[in-house]
Amino acid sequence: MTKGNINVSVENIFPLIKKFLYSDHEIFLRELISNATDATLKLKHLTNVGEAKVEYGNPKIEVKVDKKGKKIHITDQGLGMTADEVEKYINQIAFSGAEEFLDKYKDSAKDSGIIGHFGLGFYSAFMVAEKVEIITKSYKDEPAAHWICDGSPEFTIEPHDKTERGTEIILHIAEDSTEFLEESRIRTLLLKYNKFMPIPIKFGTKEINDPDFTPKTTKDKDGKETTEPHKKITVDNIINNPNPAWTKQPTDLKDEDYKDFYRELYPMQFEEPLFNIHLNVDYPFNLTGILYFPKMTNDLNLQKDRIQLYQNQVFVTDNVEGIVPEFLTMLRGVIDSPDIPLNVSRSYLQADGAVKKISSYITRKVADKLKSLFNNNREDFEKKWNDIKIVIEYGMLSEEKFFEKAEAFALYPTVDNTYFTYEELYNKIKANQTDKDDKLVILYASDKEAQHSYIEAAKAKGYEVLLLDSPIVSHLIQKLETTKEKVSFARVDGDHIDNLIKKDETTISKLDEDQKKALDELLKEVIPSEKFMVQLEAMDSNASPFIITQPEFMRRMKEMQATGGGGMFGMGSMPEMYNLVVNTNSELVSEILNTKTKKKQERLINQSLDLARLSQGLLKGEELTNFIKRSYEMIK
Amino acid sequence: MTKGNINVSVENIFPLIKKFLYSDHEIFLRELISNATDATLKLKHLTNVGEAKVEYGNPKIEVKVDKKGKKIHITDQGLGMTADEVEKYINQIAFSGAEEFLDKYKDSAKDSGIIGHFGLGFYSAFMVAEKVEIITKSYKDEPAAHWICDGSPEFTIEPHDKTERGTEIILHIAEDSTEFLEESRIRTLLLKYNKFMPIPIKFGTKEINDPDFTPKTTKDKDGKETTEPHKKITVDNIINNPNPAWTKQPTDLKDEDYKDFYRELYPMQFEEPLFNIHLNVDYPFNLTGILYFPKMTNDLNLQKDRIQLYQNQVFVTDNVEGIVPEFLTMLRGVIDSPDIPLNVSRSYLQADGAVKKISSYITRKVADKLKSLFNNNREDFEKKWNDIKIVIEYGMLSEEKFFEKAEAFALYPTVDNTYFTYEELYNKIKANQTDKDDKLVILYASDKEAQHSYIEAAKAKGYEVLLLDSPIVSHLIQKLETTKEKVSFARVDGDHIDNLIKKDETTISKLDEDQKKALDELLKEVIPSEKFMVQLEAMDSNASPFIITQPEFMRRMKEMQATGGGGMFGMGSMPEMYNLVVNTNSELVSEILNTKTKKKQERLINQSLDLARLSQGLLKGEELTNFIKRSYEMIK
Repeated sequence: MTKGNINVSVENIFPLIKKFLYSDHEIFLRELISNATDATLKLKHLTNVGEAKVEYGNPKIEVKVDKKGKKIHITDQGLGMTADEVEKYINQIAFSGAEEFLDKYKDSAKDSGIIGHFGLGFYSAFMVAEKVEIITKSYKDEPAAHWICDGSPEFTIEPHDKTERGTEIILHIAEDSTEFLEESRIRTLLLKYNKFMPIPIKFGTKEINDPDFTPKTTKDKDGKETTEPHKKITVDNIINNPNPAWTKQPTDLKDEDYKDFYRELYPMQFEEPLFNIHLNVDYPFNLTGILYFPKMTNDLNLQKDRIQLYQNQVFVTDNVEGIVPEFLTMLRGVIDSPDIPLNVSRSYLQADGAVKKISSYITRKVADKLKSLFNNNREDFEKKWNDIKIVIEYGMLSEEKFFEKAEAFALYPTVDNTYFTYEELYNKIKANQTDKDDKLVILYASDKEAQHSYIEAAKAKGYEVLLLDSPIVSHLIQKLETTKEKVSFARVDGDHIDNLIKKDETTISKLDEDQKKALDELLKEVIPSEKFMVQLEAMDSNASPFIITQPEFMRRMKEMQATGGGGMFGMGSMPEMYNLVVNTNSELVSEILNTKTKKKQERLINQSLDLARLSQGLLKGEELTNFIKRSYEMIK
Repeated sequence: MTKGNINVSVENIFPLIKKFLYSDHEIFLRELISNATDATLKLKHLTNVGEAKVEYGNPKIEVKVDKKGKKIHITDQGLGMTADEVEKYINQIAFSGAEEFLDKYKDSAKDSGIIGHFGLGFYSAFMVAEKVEIITKSYKDEPAAHWICDGSPEFTIEPHDKTERGTEIILHIAEDSTEFLEESRIRTLLLKYNKFMPIPIKFGTKEINDPDFTPKTTKDKDGKETTEPHKKITVDNIINNPNPAWTKQPTDLKDEDYKDFYRELYPMQFEEPLFNIHLNVDYPFNLTGILYFPKMTNDLNLQKDRIQLYQNQVFVTDNVEGIVPEFLTMLRGVIDSPDIPLNVSRSYLQADGAVKKISSYITRKVADKLKSLFNNNREDFEKKWNDIKIVIEYGMLSEEKFFEKAEAFALYPTVDNTYFTYEELYNKIKANQTDKDDKLVILYASDKEAQHSYIEAAKAKGYEVLLLDSPIVSHLIQKLETTKEKVSFARVDGDHIDNLIKKDETTISKLDEDQKKALDELLKEVIPSEKFMVQLEAMDSNASPFIITQPEFMRRMKEMQATGGGGMFGMGSMPEMYNLVVNTNSELVSEILNTKTKKKQERLINQSLDLARLSQGLLKGEELTNFIKRSYEMIK
């Protein structure tokens, strides 16, 4: 048996690092600014613990693009490196100075916000640069060093006359990466990755009004006032906000601060968020963040991927799938956690214990916040319900824990804008809406306008009608029916109202059996049986003569299938089925029976059928045009 | 000045490779099977050129999961390695044996399909395994070698008694990767990444009917026939198709072969594709593939990311953004090209010359195919138009070259299902639909049912009405209007028909100026001015008395804004505006004027307004319910 060591040669690995260190080359800027930030935070820590006897001051990081010279400069005012340190940290690929630092200072540096990990970030420079220079002056009393590497593994190092503390990285941008010499591209990258990093980043300058100058106003002889122009001064243009709201304590933030931060996150978003949830936990994992509830629309697909994930204030991704429960990916905001493993497969992420805990912590915080909003200001919560219900309903469907907690704040609005909790609704309708088999029937509509006449019929009986119009409502209803006992939901146009909630009383029919049989035969001659099932009912004589209904079960199965998951396979392609309920007690129906000529009877039936179809939105196209023509004739 | 070499130590780099070589750990299987495939293809090449004097045979790659032993075995029958070769190829990270092979055999091996590049793939094993073994026997007459490495950079190597040619990789799966010990997970991975790789991959066995056995049928004494059971045999379960359709010549494939391959690609897809386009180009880049046109729906967002990208038959991604023109991402199928750089930013990809050429090649091939389909079987093309128009219209909008080519096959269907090319339409309607200002007016409807009465009015004049119902049609219309000269589009309900196409003839008004003034005043008293602009018109006496129209410009701007891009900012939030066109020549209008009591006049006007609103789909909710009630009364 032979023993040996796997080895790696820099000639083999360096070309790979240049091409493939990160799948996205633009990452180089994030990495170099992370290094500059670490160099500054390390200095801060060393001055804090008294190890560096220098003035920390107000250090900045500066990014400059020199398009003509084909260079990018990244300059920090951090702790700098001696020639020996360059040798140690730069010339050894994958030796992490950050890890070494954290190891050395352990507890005291735990919350220093040091970003680095793997000692690779610097090399990402070679993904876009054909030559890289480092000019660095340590805070220690040693001469500055100038390091140059042209992308071959060979480098040179010599002394430099730099006197200010800190490090300047100069990238000589390669031919295939000239896109990064555009100021606008760099600005976009800084705003994407570095917008909330903890050290101020200067990118160019801007003119502002001199705050120390107050323009004088003078009066001329006519008494007309003239104000002299404001004095302008040029100041550094700081592109980032080093102290974003999520890094502060909730007690230090007012409502307006949260709104300001929302505008900072989504400058193109004009609508204000409805409310926010501040996340802040240390143990068993480290996570901070702010989630916002925006106004939701009913389109589930277009609203995802708006939550941004950070690690130590460095933007990582806006794909939080697997970290945030799916129903909450419709929210907006930021999550910052150094504890989320990112370079693992999504399926592993979802199985990871720490990530699972994060996910359920977020769910719990959201549920708690909703509950307290409901309890503290119910009126306001009701006003917001329509804008947030899609998240809550989706959560009730997908997370059992959330379903249980939502019992306390999930609302069931009626068509008249009364908002019940399930318990309140139950108590309100129990007496009147329990049918003869002791089952509670909850009536609902999906569209107040389209189902208006059916809603009116139900209200005439003193019933409450909910307005449930989310796209996933059939799934939620199904879930409620299986969770609650002896409860069923029925849409108001599922049958005529006396059949939806069957009571023991029966309405006496004006027609005798022979008349009913005659009517039935007559109707079946005129009404196409492939479209409508005729159903004779003895109803209130004031109720509509003809009503078109669509059976609950079939309709709901089709809806569930259309919105995915559940429903019965193949239902989607079944034709729409309708019943035609004919009120045998209505005057018009008596008239139809008593009309002498067949032709007149047919005309009456067809006109009544057209009106019933109109009421259900089924009269369209040529039939509607003809109906309107006939109606104009009738007016005259 | 000091010179030196950047160096890398295996102790630093190896832990990184284990964690971060690929962002998705599942990739390890693809990499190891790629290596096994290369080992086999290399042997094939060496036997072909006579350098290896062994039987190539029918080599397979076998994948075995040993859940109990926590191991995965990947075994090939390729060229194998001697102990020296293990030393050379395995023990040096990032030394690519594939590159060396291609260098050595240059031209003769150019089309051998060798996959490897960077000499890193093997190390991906350590992302999921805590220990890796290699047992390998070269085709050369040397003893087999057994290499073991436990993830530290240290390895051992010793002779082994393996006698069959080839390499076996044994992964001892780590605790955090036990998901890969599930057969179902491995099967899923094989089907995702390796489904079309060129060497057969065995994963388990399956039972089939013995093809050499014919079951005997015997008759009993009653003449009843009994057939003995079929003899089963166990055979290898080959999970891949080593010769997928796109690697073959179009001339060798029948229509049915393309459909079979579609089913292979999308086993859960029950609908057949409409047609396919075989891509096959050698120069200036290498690209093969088959694109399919599926039936499209009008939802643009849900249909993307169905094209799969391969490199040498290895699945890479289903995100072809930047490679395929955006409007074609709605298609399905595969593209295989070793020439597409993948580990670069998307913005770079889009600027890359080679990729630009690929993208315009694909556009051109698609346009050519559509043209030939149109020319060869127009009837069939017309039948498919509704299912493909969204792609073509989107392409016309987004790619100027495609817009020009589409002139030859883009269709404009009428409400009566006649399909015109633009040129045919132009010639057909030029005489009748040119207005007094010499502008050609193309009439269209967006919904045959909802705009039925307006369509009828236009057809009564002998005009053609197109049916344009794509979600992006307002953008396309805008483009056509700016491209073609003296042409404008008008939706049939934009105004009454005589105003849409203004001719010199005028209809004489039955009413004199005083009567008109009286009518105008009366109407304005009754009709709410915030909802309708009243517009008196002397029209044909048979035309509708009241017509509601919606001005083209405003409606179109709102539509364009709703579907993104174009439209005027802020239009979306403007209220809907309608005109009420009153036909002063209609009998009913005369009657309204001549009715004596104000109350009756009002009733006539309101009923007419309701009918006009009904025709435009604007009568809803309570107003509709009341209208229906009144109408039931009127029947009686």
